[in-house]
Amino acid sequence: MSREKVVLAYSGGLDTACILKTLIQSGYDVVAYVADVGQQEDFDDVARRARETGAVDVYVEDLKREFVTDFIFPAIAGNAVYENRYLLGTSLARPVIAKRQVEVALDVGADAVSHGATGKGNDQVRFELAFAALAPDLRIIAPWKDPDFLNRFQGRSDLLAFAREHGIPVEATAEKPYSSDENLMHRSYEAGLLEDPDRSPPADMFKLTRALEDTPDTADELVIHFRDAMPVRVVNEAAGVEHTDPVELFEYLNERGGVHGVGRVDMVENRFVGIKSRGVYETPGGTILHHALRDLEGVAMDREVLRLRDMLSPRFAEIIYNGFWFSPEMDFIRSAFDQSERLIDGQVRVKLFKGNVIPMGRTSESSLYDQNLSSMDVAGGYDQQDARGFIRINALRLRAHKLILRRTGDEGGPVTGA
Amino acid sequence: MSREKVVLAYSGGLDTACILKTLIQSGYDVVAYVADVGQQEDFDDVARRARETGAVDVYVEDLKREFVTDFIFPAIAGNAVYENRYLLGTSLARPVIAKRQVEVALDVGADAVSHGATGKGNDQVRFELAFAALAPDLRIIAPWKDPDFLNRFQGRSDLLAFAREHGIPVEATAEKPYSSDENLMHRSYEAGLLEDPDRSPPADMFKLTRALEDTPDTADELVIHFRDAMPVRVVNEAAGVEHTDPVELFEYLNERGGVHGVGRVDMVENRFVGIKSRGVYETPGGTILHHALRDLEGVAMDREVLRLRDMLSPRFAEIIYNGFWFSPEMDFIRSAFDQSERLIDGQVRVKLFKGNVIPMGRTSESSLYDQNLSSMDVAGGYDQQDARGFIRINALRLRAHKLILRRTGDEGGPVTGA
Amino acid sequence: MSREKVVLAYSGGLDTACILKTLIQSGYDVVAYVADVGQQEDFDDVARRARETGAVDVYVEDLKREFVTDFIFPAIAGNAVYENRYLLGTSLARPVIAKRQVEVALDVGADAVSHGATGKGNDQVRFELAFAALAPDLRIIAPWKDPDFLNRFQGRSDLLAFAREHGIPVEATAEKPYSSDENLMHRSYEAGLLEDPDRSPPADMFKLTRALEDTPDTADELVIHFRDAMPVRVVNEAAGVEHTDPVELFEYLNERGGVHGVGRVDMVENRFVGIKSRGVYETPGGTILHHALRDLEGVAMDREVLRLRDMLSPRFAEIIYNGFWFSPEMDFIRSAFDQSERLIDGQVRVKLFKGNVIPMGRTSESSLYDQNLSSMDVAGGYDQQDARGFIRINALRLRAHKLILRRTGDEGGPVTGA
Amino acid sequence: MSREKVVLAYSGGLDTACILKTLIQSGYDVVAYVADVGQQEDFDDVARRARETGAVDVYVEDLKREFVTDFIFPAIAGNAVYENRYLLGTSLARPVIAKRQVEVALDVGADAVSHGATGKGNDQVRFELAFAALAPDLRIIAPWKDPDFLNRFQGRSDLLAFAREHGIPVEATAEKPYSSDENLMHRSYEAGLLEDPDRSPPADMFKLTRALEDTPDTADELVIHFRDAMPVRVVNEAAGVEHTDPVELFEYLNERGGVHGVGRVDMVENRFVGIKSRGVYETPGGTILHHALRDLEGVAMDREVLRLRDMLSPRFAEIIYNGFWFSPEMDFIRSAFDQSERLIDGQVRVKLFKGNVIPMGRTSESSLYDQNLSSMDVAGGYDQQDARGFIRINALRLRAHKLILRRTGDEGGPVTGA
Repeated sequence: MSREKVVLAYSGGLDTACILKTLIQSGYDVVAYVADVGQQEDFDDVARRARETGAVDVYVEDLKREFVTDFIFPAIAGNAVYENRYLLGTSLARPVIAKRQVEVALDVGADAVSHGATGKGNDQVRFELAFAALAPDLRIIAPWKDPDFLNRFQGRSDLLAFAREHGIPVEATAEKPYSSDENLMHRSYEAGLLEDPDRSPPADMFKLTRALEDTPDTADELVIHFRDAMPVRVVNEAAGVEHTDPVELFEYLNERGGVHGVGRVDMVENRFVGIKSRGVYETPGGTILHHALRDLEGVAMDREVLRLRDMLSPRFAEIIYNGFWFSPEMDFIRSAFDQSERLIDGQVRVKLFKGNVIPMGRTSESSLYDQNLSSMDVAGGYDQQDARGFIRINALRLRAHKLILRRTGDEGGPVTGA
Repeated sequence: MSREKVVLAYSGGLDTACILKTLIQSGYDVVAYVADVGQQEDFDDVARRARETGAVDVYVEDLKREFVTDFIFPAIAGNAVYENRYLLGTSLARPVIAKRQVEVALDVGADAVSHGATGKGNDQVRFELAFAALAPDLRIIAPWKDPDFLNRFQGRSDLLAFAREHGIPVEATAEKPYSSDENLMHRSYEAGLLEDPDRSPPADMFKLTRALEDTPDTADELVIHFRDAMPVRVVNEAAGVEHTDPVELFEYLNERGGVHGVGRVDMVENRFVGIKSRGVYETPGGTILHHALRDLEGVAMDREVLRLRDMLSPRFAEIIYNGFWFSPEMDFIRSAFDQSERLIDGQVRVKLFKGNVIPMGRTSESSLYDQNLSSMDVAGGYDQQDARGFIRINALRLRAHKLILRRTGDEGGPVTGA
Repeated sequence: MSREKVVLAYSGGLDTACILKTLIQSGYDVVAYVADVGQQEDFDDVARRARETGAVDVYVEDLKREFVTDFIFPAIAGNAVYENRYLLGTSLARPVIAKRQVEVALDVGADAVSHGATGKGNDQVRFELAFAALAPDLRIIAPWKDPDFLNRFQGRSDLLAFAREHGIPVEATAEKPYSSDENLMHRSYEAGLLEDPDRSPPADMFKLTRALEDTPDTADELVIHFRDAMPVRVVNEAAGVEHTDPVELFEYLNERGGVHGVGRVDMVENRFVGIKSRGVYETPGGTILHHALRDLEGVAMDREVLRLRDMLSPRFAEIIYNGFWFSPEMDFIRSAFDQSERLIDGQVRVKLFKGNVIPMGRTSESSLYDQNLSSMDVAGGYDQQDARGFIRINALRLRAHKLILRRTGDEGGPVTGA
Repeated sequence: MSREKVVLAYSGGLDTACILKTLIQSGYDVVAYVADVGQQEDFDDVARRARETGAVDVYVEDLKREFVTDFIFPAIAGNAVYENRYLLGTSLARPVIAKRQVEVALDVGADAVSHGATGKGNDQVRFELAFAALAPDLRIIAPWKDPDFLNRFQGRSDLLAFAREHGIPVEATAEKPYSSDENLMHRSYEAGLLEDPDRSPPADMFKLTRALEDTPDTADELVIHFRDAMPVRVVNEAAGVEHTDPVELFEYLNERGGVHGVGRVDMVENRFVGIKSRGVYETPGGTILHHALRDLEGVAMDREVLRLRDMLSPRFAEIIYNGFWFSPEMDFIRSAFDQSERLIDGQVRVKLFKGNVIPMGRTSESSLYDQNLSSMDVAGGYDQQDARGFIRINALRLRAHKLILRRTGDEGGPVTGA
């Protein structure tokens, strides 16, 4: 009788290495799925170790392009900022990995998919909801929620002992006083000493961005071109640099943003599983794009569309953060957002300096801004006398409301009554 | 027969000086109302000039405290950010002025109120809606929407000629290539050379904040204490400074923020009257409070309350921007926001450096953050196995949706179908 | 020199007849545009009278099909209900008329468009916003906001006198004690004796629906088939009737709904121009479709999509009511709604009886409802034990919140503190 | 050693009787908590049976008043309608029961609370979230999610056998082909033969409302008086009836509504636990109040407040349905809603006839409706010429948008491009 097959999202770290082995022990043929979403890694070595640990097959795939064009750029275009600050670097990487992992699982005729995310975090939810949405029939094996597994591996030392015992090749990395995750969009840090929300992160923790104290005293000025709200070209004229390839463009923004200390965030956020968690993030390139695009929207997006979009943006960010990228509610919101992003065309000049992203100027062929119209000196198509009727009609119901308050002797609300 | 009486919001500038005189010419007794909302001004001189121009009475009132406690602080507490960037410094000053102006008008038995805001801007709306909401019976005289007045005064030179002709004392200020407005919360700039959205503001325009190039290489670290989301104490331990008085506290934040180049914004925004307009702002103290309070909310505000609040915050900002401070919809939103601000207590350490406001740590006696709960190593009250059921139940409808797509052969939406 | 040309929305009533003549007197060549949106009218006679009054050309166009498929059906699909009750019959007819009127104006090279809607109502806004959105360069002539015209025609008697004087052929209709408007979707009544909101409408006012007292004692049962949320077939098996043509289908629903007294609404609503107004409506067919489609959504629409849709539906209704059918915000919302309407397929059996529309059963090939899944007796894919973790995780933040209230001695909010 | 104590929500039905016994078998002292929320029941008999089954103590409490004033009326005032139709009768009863049950548990020093709701429904969530929110330390025992219990009792016959075996007194009711729940607000039906959504409910199922065929041919006309959106008086002048006591008033509305067949709903709804479920409801009195209050809001509620309220109403209904009555998000929304309900004062005449609730007239001392203002003949404070500026300014951005579409050759969105 043939053994059942499982496709495991495999990072090569201690956790997924031990999970790979325990799955084999449980009678599975394990296919290791390794996604390159831009993390620093020797992928050949990761693949070699997966095979040595017993994987029947190993897939190593470069997902950077899809990650940038189908996840990072649309999220920034939709003003996805979780709880006013987090640009969702980790949240966006999960669905792109899960999507390909599922496709591989279906290709190889797997019975199950598995991952090594913990039982207290958001990533387990993101992986499993994506699995469920894309392949409702695939079984999901989540060891870090399995009572036996949890009992067997109560800490890092148990994992290390297990790895030693079974000859699992593990990278000899010192244990960090926090955990971190990296991809093309960002690097995140949590747990360990970061759990005290009153303690600043250690200075040597950051990898993608320089401390402000170490940033150059000369600014970079970049021109970012957008088409339908997607970045299509970045130019650094002074440096003679130009990029149009999405991945290269984004990597260049990461590099220059990093040099200028752009995109650090330190916050306490609300996880989907109901607990608050402290997270620290470095998102240099994403932060630059976020600011540049908001600036372009100023000239090119209609006011009422902006209102509706911004009312839905927190929900959009929540959908991404909670792991519902593949969901009908996401399709609903994306349909509207895609429509709102048509004609968000133009270019924004931004200055990078000492952690700041400063818009210096913007032009747009689809601009709704009319220099003459907004001028206070020149009349153009705007008739000041129209404002009289406009204000009077807007004031009608306020007048009526006040008359009622007066008639009824009610002192009104928290504001009116002040 | 007695002359009718009008109370004019009088700034002492060229416009309101000429308006004062034309109102007298039209047969009114004019009471000049001068509000000190924190702008740099010789108020004695302003009062003297109002009298010399013919005002029957002059009121000069210091509204700074009310402005800070009843308008600025509640706006920041409610996350009021107009179109993702503008902290509403001018918008917040208008209702506090209008409110007292109306009270004076009712006290002196005036028949009308007047103001000098232009017919293309937002301030006219803010003044007139506040007048209508607070005193529906008072007539409103808005010269810059009056055809005769507009015809008579077609530019600054007409005003200057009129002032000269009638011996109106005017401050000998050179005409600036932009217009600006100042109060305790911010300084704003628009029009003139700023009308070209691709042109950076001139470096010498800014008054409240230093250019980043001129900021000190040593950071300031402040501890800001909040109670019910309102700042109640600011401490700079290194400098031995502490403030608890709202106005002093805010002025101190303005000063330190200004030194470190905090709070400049350059944007194109949507006016209520339907046109886009380029605005540049300096809001040092408000920006510091905004960042500190968002950080405190991270530990102290419930997740679902934050969701609801943030969904309404853009509308809250719009209400303020459009001039509906005194309105039933504001009372509605404020009631909910006030409730959400209870127990947002605690302190945030922020570092001011090179234009950045960096949260360094936060503590809160009402914190919903539990170090043990969020830890990834310690179990506490959280049972990993609960996550299994949580995720499975959240996945149910996603599975059902996918099965439908499969059954019907529909390729789904913009995301699912990707 | 050639005369300027104006295209007037002409109904053949007293108002637009007089307007036609005054436009000619003002020097215009007037093209009369007559839209058949389903009102009871002798269109040949209307055209004849327009020519007799002096129109240089007359267009009579049947817009019923476009009205039904592009306006009525999408509005009902999007759950457009203004202020909880009004199904927007008049609001939806205006843009379809304005659109064709503008197309005719552009075809004939007109300089202006005109309409006869009053200066206090919503229709003037709907016409003029549609004109502006579709043909921003066309001048708009709105006599009922023109001071001279208002002065000349202060009441119906002035209009009648003018008509008599100039030999304008006017239908000899008795003046009604209210005004009314009719189209394929509804008949509306306002003004006159209806202005007293405490007075019931006269029984003989209604035209499309029978009084409940006069409805048959035998119900009709219809089966309504939907595809992508649009009605595609209506079957009355007992009567041997079936309709698939959109206009015929809708007219049949109107007829049967009317017989059973379905779809009367009597309400006070908020006009866009800031005043409250009493309106009475008869919308038989629209009401049937509204109830049937909401019922089908129960089985076929995803929960979170329904949440988002229903949060936006009041705004959708407001956009329609206020006259912004042709607007970027409408495009934004419609994009999302269109996505949500995919796969809303199936059939609903409804019983019409004594003013009620009663869903009797529904089936859907795209149903998300699973009889086994929802059963309380049979397990299916649902594991009761999952609910434990689901509830416990949902309860986490509530527990934390209560502990904070307890610790701080705060008695909580309006509910918790009860 | 003393036994642990648990307070069980006890209905006297088969399920909770068996649960009571199994809790005793597990070593608990069981306090039976019996809430009278208006269901038809012989409470003395229920209490006797609880004692006979072994309860150490029994509490029977009449919660009708609190249920009506603190739950039903505020829900109706806030326009709480779940998924466009369900007035939340069961959802509202759960928190009032849970609240008192918890208070009793704390009074008697219990260690745990328990309930008999199934593991697939909403009620388990409502009970347990309320327990967690009000008494985070109390353990929750939910047998219908316990694997052993589920294994032991796989159907009704297992329960009956267990009852027989242990001499548990069970009411000799025939098994119904559906399950139902009853309280003062409504009677609900689900499961069994109702699981087929295409099958109409059996005619003899309904208890609170007559079939339309059996309703009287003479209408009732009631006058309902509201103060701050709460019903304070109901008058049936023709019958010489008047009620001001909240419970009596509501019972009277139930009775008259029932006679006239008001308030039946048949729908498929979305449960919080992710599955769709068919529910049938009878809510006579609640339906009358819902229609009457919406009608009063027409004259007395400000337009923008209504907009904000109605945008939040679906979320308000969801909070109630999902069991988050005691939650910070509910406090948030209730604070705003309470403010919006001030001055919703007045009276509405409604006619009950053949299942319809027909508003016949309304008056309000706090009415924002002005007969002269809304009149189309009389000018009052409204100047038609103001509409010109109002419309022109509203049209500005539409014109700009069209010019952009024209310039860029974009054909626009789903609407504009039609």
